[in-house]
Amino acid sequence: MSKNKRQIKLGAFLMETGHHIAAWRHPDAQADGGLNFEHYAQVARIAEQARFDAIFFADSVSVRDTNLASLSRTARADHFEPLTLLSALSVVTRNIGLIATVSTTFNEPYNLARKFASLDHLGGGRSGWNLVTSSTESEALNFSFEQHPDHAVRYERAKEFYDVVAGLWDSWEDDAFSRDKQSGVYFDPDKLHVLNHRGKHFKVRGPLNVARSPQGWPVVVQAGASDAGKELAAQTAEVIFVAHQTLEEAQTFYRDIKSRLARYGRQPDHLKIMPGIFPVIGKTEAEARAKFDALQELIHPTVGLALLSNMSGGVDLSSYPLDRPVPDLPETNGGKSRQRLLLDLARRENLTIRELYLRIAGARGHQQVVGTPESIADQLQQWFEEEGADGFNIMSPWLPGGLGEFAELVVPELQRRGLFRTEYEGRTLRENLGLPRPVNRYVLAATEQRATVAAR
Amino acid sequence: MSKNKRQIKLGAFLMETGHHIAAWRHPDAQADGGLNFEHYAQVARIAEQARFDAIFFADSVSVRDTNLASLSRTARADHFEPLTLLSALSVVTRNIGLIATVSTTFNEPYNLARKFASLDHLGGGRSGWNLVTSSTESEALNFSFEQHPDHAVRYERAKEFYDVVAGLWDSWEDDAFSRDKQSGVYFDPDKLHVLNHRGKHFKVRGPLNVARSPQGWPVVVQAGASDAGKELAAQTAEVIFVAHQTLEEAQTFYRDIKSRLARYGRQPDHLKIMPGIFPVIGKTEAEARAKFDALQELIHPTVGLALLSNMSGGVDLSSYPLDRPVPDLPETNGGKSRQRLLLDLARRENLTIRELYLRIAGARGHQQVVGTPESIADQLQQWFEEEGADGFNIMSPWLPGGLGEFAELVVPELQRRGLFRTEYEGRTLRENLGLPRPVNRYVLAATEQRATVAAR
Repeated sequence: MSKNKRQIKLGAFLMETGHHIAAWRHPDAQADGGLNFEHYAQVARIAEQARFDAIFFADSVSVRDTNLASLSRTARADHFEPLTLLSALSVVTRNIGLIATVSTTFNEPYNLARKFASLDHLGGGRSGWNLVTSSTESEALNFSFEQHPDHAVRYERAKEFYDVVAGLWDSWEDDAFSRDKQSGVYFDPDKLHVLNHRGKHFKVRGPLNVARSPQGWPVVVQAGASDAGKELAAQTAEVIFVAHQTLEEAQTFYRDIKSRLARYGRQPDHLKIMPGIFPVIGKTEAEARAKFDALQELIHPTVGLALLSNMSGGVDLSSYPLDRPVPDLPETNGGKSRQRLLLDLARRENLTIRELYLRIAGARGHQQVVGTPESIADQLQQWFEEEGADGFNIMSPWLPGGLGEFAELVVPELQRRGLFRTEYEGRTLRENLGLPRPVNRYVLAATEQRATVAAR
Repeated sequence: MSKNKRQIKLGAFLMETGHHIAAWRHPDAQADGGLNFEHYAQVARIAEQARFDAIFFADSVSVRDTNLASLSRTARADHFEPLTLLSALSVVTRNIGLIATVSTTFNEPYNLARKFASLDHLGGGRSGWNLVTSSTESEALNFSFEQHPDHAVRYERAKEFYDVVAGLWDSWEDDAFSRDKQSGVYFDPDKLHVLNHRGKHFKVRGPLNVARSPQGWPVVVQAGASDAGKELAAQTAEVIFVAHQTLEEAQTFYRDIKSRLARYGRQPDHLKIMPGIFPVIGKTEAEARAKFDALQELIHPTVGLALLSNMSGGVDLSSYPLDRPVPDLPETNGGKSRQRLLLDLARRENLTIRELYLRIAGARGHQQVVGTPESIADQLQQWFEEEGADGFNIMSPWLPGGLGEFAELVVPELQRRGLFRTEYEGRTLRENLGLPRPVNRYVLAATEQRATVAAR
């Protein structure tokens, strides 16, 4: 294969005991995985040996305890804070990217910029920030909010938050620190820059108390699929994790996002679109199906119903008959894009509530692929080559075994087809993803100024 | 020695390249230590092999760039965020405590409770939180404050912050999680508790999304020496890191703090007082003095003056003559206790500004001990036996060598005298410090209720 051939990017989306809601009951699952460092170390090593680009953690800052009967039958209530965990995982890995979700709604940009820059230094240039806004009431109530901020305000704040964080990451020029013992000069004051941000939501002076990190900026990831989310992503994201059910839907989204980039002066391949994929792998189609059915049988109806309610942005479906088609859902302030996604799916396939909750129990609105390594590779290849995706975020049904199977069976198949790397291209997450390293804004401004003067 | 004999507790207060302001220029210092993980891993291993109770990091959330000429000659402007670093260090250590400073002024209690609980799970019960309030303008300006909150308000908020954090740490009873694959029950809903805190500064519902940690609560550390600080410590702290220049001062503080405990129903030995000690160690007194002088000679006058200004809470001394006695300092809103400490020192010894900055260049107001392993052990023994201290926070002049010398020379001397452990007593920081594990408040309340009913 050509060295410059476009290849699939792979993220390992890790979640406690796995993505299937009943994963923790799987005989081979690590039931206490959410707070077991050795479990995550093992999973991270599996992903790194398979040459995944990154491991990725979602996040929420609450226990969603509105339905305790359901919650107490899942492994979702207790887990490591992602940045704490990734900092530790940086020590037991060498090449794989480390992407954590942190909400702009409940944090301060200075703290966030600092933590991700620290993690980037720690791992030698492997950190990534999944920028999200928070939309659940249970989270708002842990942060002195009386009610959740409006969708539009959340995004406005998110954009300004991003601007501050990126500005702080440029506080120091890359070569600011000479640390010359002889002269006694530790850094060059001319290469330190004060941000002096004064906006609607934040006033942040800077500079950051961390040197510019190996990647310049940690990789910025986003997941929002609403129009506001897509526009913010086109401006700022370098990776998008997204949920699609069909190739057509994926292609529409892909075209939409890539077409928005030009207006921000960005190239199409500088934003990687990576839909989530929930793979159940068998030596035969029948074996794969049997594995999936065995997992589905572990779902208690109480759990399935509650999951559906959560995934639809807080809408309560417990009063509707389980075996009748999904009713019209009233639109709420919470996650609009997920509501639409679920409704579209139910309409398209005329699903009952029970069928819908079984459908999303694993993939939660993402694409489920149940099949052989070859058939799964076929599907990834098609989505990739027909411009539905630049890569995939692999959501293993259970951990560690589910990821192990993908690494042992599907990755080699992709490699045989020349669709996936056999060795890391670079040292940093940016290098492996094929993303440019941002030039420091102050260096850029000075360069442009010199060019203007020279042109006179 | 008796198994129950009271012994010295030791913390290793780590700081980039060491505590001396010119440490980074020392021939054996790791000049880029502040952002070098291998450096910190080496230092943490040295401390653990010597059986230190904990490593400890101070923190600030700004670059104090008011005097760039000075700052650019120090290694203080860039370093890891402490929790990020300690999470990584948890992986390369097994027994030593991991204490990070995090300000209550610029954080949310839910985020903080979660991070420290996560770190406690990560290290198997070794985390500690040094609770501080922030008093510098440079920090306030990074967090959308127009000016810094008043001293009294900061402490009021800190107490409420602590109450919320401790309450969140009790969200789950210790045995809440059964994770029984057969029955499908992951946790017992009756053992989950909602805090529902509604106070003046915070409204936090809870529960925390992390199981109760190995220590129940991470160890709570404080450093405030003002009256408000001391009262808060008596209520809530389990360790106090403090700065003293004389034994008498240390004894007065020790008696004061210990006498305040009874009114909160606490026992004197459940709060460990650990003054900072800046040791310069030589085989002879002359060698130790020569080592110290060599370090002092590396201080640029610009650096010394600026340090003094910072340490006195932002008071500008650059207009006063260097070689005249320290003038009266106007009291500012920032760190009152540190201003008083410096003034007392200057008065007591009739120091000039230059002499004062040279004096604090290393220890920054803490006790400097320059001598042989025996004479340093003598002094620690005296302070310990005459109730000036329960232990010490060792502030090595430069790293890693300075800590290495303490570990190799002073620790064995303390061990020979039966004053320091030769093996860790327990698995957790609490066990090693001899601190009780807090009983979950909800379990305690239920126990008390049963006792009341039984007594009727």
